[in-house]
Amino acid sequence: MKTLVDMGSPVGAWLSNELDSVSSILSDHLKNKHHEVNDLCNELATYRGKMLRPSLLLLSWRALHPAGHIPNSVRIAAGVVELIHLATLVHDDVLDEADLRRGKQTINSLRGNEAAVMLGDYLLSSAFLLCSTIKNPELNILLGKITNTLCAGEVVQLANRNNVGLTLEQYYQIIHDKTASLIAACCEMGGVLGNGNTEQLKTLRKFGEGVGTAFQIKDDLLDLLERQEDIGKPAGRDLEKGKLTLPIILLLTTNPSLKNGVEEIVANNDRCALRQLVDSSKSVEAAVQKVNSLVEEAVGGLSVVFSNEVSSQMCLMVEQLKV
Amino acid sequence: MKTLVDMGSPVGAWLSNELDSVSSILSDHLKNKHHEVNDLCNELATYRGKMLRPSLLLLSWRALHPAGHIPNSVRIAAGVVELIHLATLVHDDVLDEADLRRGKQTINSLRGNEAAVMLGDYLLSSAFLLCSTIKNPELNILLGKITNTLCAGEVVQLANRNNVGLTLEQYYQIIHDKTASLIAACCEMGGVLGNGNTEQLKTLRKFGEGVGTAFQIKDDLLDLLERQEDIGKPAGRDLEKGKLTLPIILLLTTNPSLKNGVEEIVANNDRCALRQLVDSSKSVEAAVQKVNSLVEEAVGGLSVVFSNEVSSQMCLMVEQLKV
Repeated sequence: MKTLVDMGSPVGAWLSNELDSVSSILSDHLKNKHHEVNDLCNELATYRGKMLRPSLLLLSWRALHPAGHIPNSVRIAAGVVELIHLATLVHDDVLDEADLRRGKQTINSLRGNEAAVMLGDYLLSSAFLLCSTIKNPELNILLGKITNTLCAGEVVQLANRNNVGLTLEQYYQIIHDKTASLIAACCEMGGVLGNGNTEQLKTLRKFGEGVGTAFQIKDDLLDLLERQEDIGKPAGRDLEKGKLTLPIILLLTTNPSLKNGVEEIVANNDRCALRQLVDSSKSVEAAVQKVNSLVEEAVGGLSVVFSNEVSSQMCLMVEQLKV
Repeated sequence: MKTLVDMGSPVGAWLSNELDSVSSILSDHLKNKHHEVNDLCNELATYRGKMLRPSLLLLSWRALHPAGHIPNSVRIAAGVVELIHLATLVHDDVLDEADLRRGKQTINSLRGNEAAVMLGDYLLSSAFLLCSTIKNPELNILLGKITNTLCAGEVVQLANRNNVGLTLEQYYQIIHDKTASLIAACCEMGGVLGNGNTEQLKTLRKFGEGVGTAFQIKDDLLDLLERQEDIGKPAGRDLEKGKLTLPIILLLTTNPSLKNGVEEIVANNDRCALRQLVDSSKSVEAAVQKVNSLVEEAVGGLSVVFSNEVSSQMCLMVEQLKV
């Protein structure tokens, strides 16, 4: 399959092959004796993207063993994180009442919320089952902690809908929990399976945290700037769901007097007024700078500890996140 | 706490103590650094019942060690199955659009579907994390298989809403998957943790399967017969959700010509007509007999392999299921 890494490079070719193996593992693992379950899982095709999370897990392992033979447990772990990610997408679309993802209909819109809730549960359960087959209790514990964190992030975000008093610190905590924690765990799991030392594991985790944070801020930005063509889903959903994102929080931090106005904008789901407000400030620019500096820090941190063809490709890959 | 076993017996006193320990384990395990998560978990109080599943796990272990010292892993496993059960209740209520459970408001009605979906996910994730702390990979695999089965049961049930052609075999498969499989796993996990031999494990699993099947048929019967006071939730929900249950399937098996009429009743959610149809047949009686014979078989099977004070109390406990 096409990867996020330059396909012409040896690392890209290796990754492409490995991602094909991961996809096969997932197809086999999700097969169920009930056709109703298989029918529902088939709808997931739309949800499959470029497999950022499995890619990071595989590459993190590879950065430790650039020429080594890859154990099947690494591919299985890569499948596990993709399943967790798919489960969160399916349930997120229920939470967001989203009709489109990657330009196609969501499972909740095709099959109803109930089927989407059950499919998400099935994926979550399948992820834990798959992880358990590796028979590494530490990995299971790491996975359980991460999924707890993902859920906590969503719960806190839900509880703060329409809260114009949301602080920068709270915002960063939410996006850490709901997005960056899984991406960081992917890098760390690759490192753990590759028997990385403490410094290497810490470096990989920090790299993933930076990348994940940048990724979510950018996603929020595209939604705010209504770049529907870039995200494959209707823009303006964050406002509709009362989610305050970085440019608005930055704006309110420097201009607390705007709070009442923003509260009204959120209550009325007034996209036009929000864009006007944001366009007249420097806060979008500040958010863009934050994305870019997070990417640069991540790349810089990785390069201090790793310096081979694999880590170079990881850096090139995440540099594409820059705005 | 009050148990399902005679509180005056030594087994009842032991179980009561152990269930208190399990409850403490759960409270500690669910504590989160975010108050929003704790607030949501606090709503679960309504969902806590008599802890049938942890009781069966603890008693199954105890039947193998009537005087032994209980390892903490058994209590933890009992907590795990309760968490899985709670997760299914929370998501089931979303699926069923239920407003009441045990006579109190459901989480979805109090906090909205979105919070209920996330809480269910958090409970599922917490269950796997708790199970992983036992560091017994086989137990994790068993748990993963069971939760996959639970989800599959719900998916198949959903796909067969309003299907008046549902066969007896399909119905039994659904209730096995969505209910009996977890109850059977509770008994088996108690046995596995108690180092039971193959015959003992098989006996415990079969006992749980019988009990679980009887339990679900009875639950369906109470819903059909509108015994709201017995179930703590509005009756007639199965009809409303197009779920065909045993008496109706038995009726249609012996009188296929009634299919069109039942299809109309289901389409119109006509409880009155359904009751009339069922009351004029022997199918409720047949369903009652099925519950009672399942309980008798379960008790009989257990008594062949186990004969001590613990297994006797297990039998007395499940005999309360008889109608």
